[in-house]
Amino acid sequence: MIDLGPALDIYERVLGGTLEHRETVPEQGVEAASVLVGTARIELLSPLGEDTPVGRFLAKRGQGMHHIAYRVEDIRAALASAAAEGAELIDAEPRTGLFGLQVAFIHPESMAGVLVELVEPLSSTNGESDGR
Amino acid sequence: MIDLGPALDIYERVLGGTLEHRETVPEQGVEAASVLVGTARIELLSPLGEDTPVGRFLAKRGQGMHHIAYRVEDIRAALASAAAEGAELIDAEPRTGLFGLQVAFIHPESMAGVLVELVEPLSSTNGESDGR
Repeated sequence: MIDLGPALDIYERVLGGTLEHRETVPEQGVEAASVLVGTARIELLSPLGEDTPVGRFLAKRGQGMHHIAYRVEDIRAALASAAAEGAELIDAEPRTGLFGLQVAFIHPESMAGVLVELVEPLSSTNGESDGR
Repeated sequence: MIDLGPALDIYERVLGGTLEHRETVPEQGVEAASVLVGTARIELLSPLGEDTPVGRFLAKRGQGMHHIAYRVEDIRAALASAAAEGAELIDAEPRTGLFGLQVAFIHPESMAGVLVELVEPLSSTNGESDGR
């Protein structure tokens, strides 16, 4: 398994990021850390085992970017709009993601190869791009 | 070759993005478009031929995310700081990138597998994350 520490160290030292949260989520098979870098929030993920979504991604692709998340004000409205424009939703309904955020994913095949996550923050936010 | 149009269409319709620039750069072998999505700037790249950096990336990895760029105020200072923290620079000196921006890349092997670009905007900006 790849330890989260070295990547976190890189984001803090080289990119001047600030650790916001760090959490182990056994039911999702990951250790996760969110790091604020300027106006962006970078989420670092490390698998708890090989037979987990992130473990399989690492085995197939190696370390790298997994997806991009856009902050939206109203995730249900954003999902409906995306679907109306032809996006293939992985999550037709929002679900609870890391750090308690409401999230939903859009299939990369309908997004020019990029796995896209929509995120509705719980309250005031300091991070992801505003997707609309 | 993959036409830039369908991806641009996705970013405009599904993500509510606004086309900022679109340019063909023969010396870099790409057609490029920058799209503003909320506070982020998404750069779409399409190769002009197979034997180009982006053409080789597509042949190897397929469509997807290529790198992440962080806006910095002083790219020379940011490069010196990154190198001092152990980052392996691809560009020891800034060079002129797409749309006339000053850019420099950091090697993914020293950045947990992610190709990182530092960008110093020409003047006032509306886009990439502020890397420091």
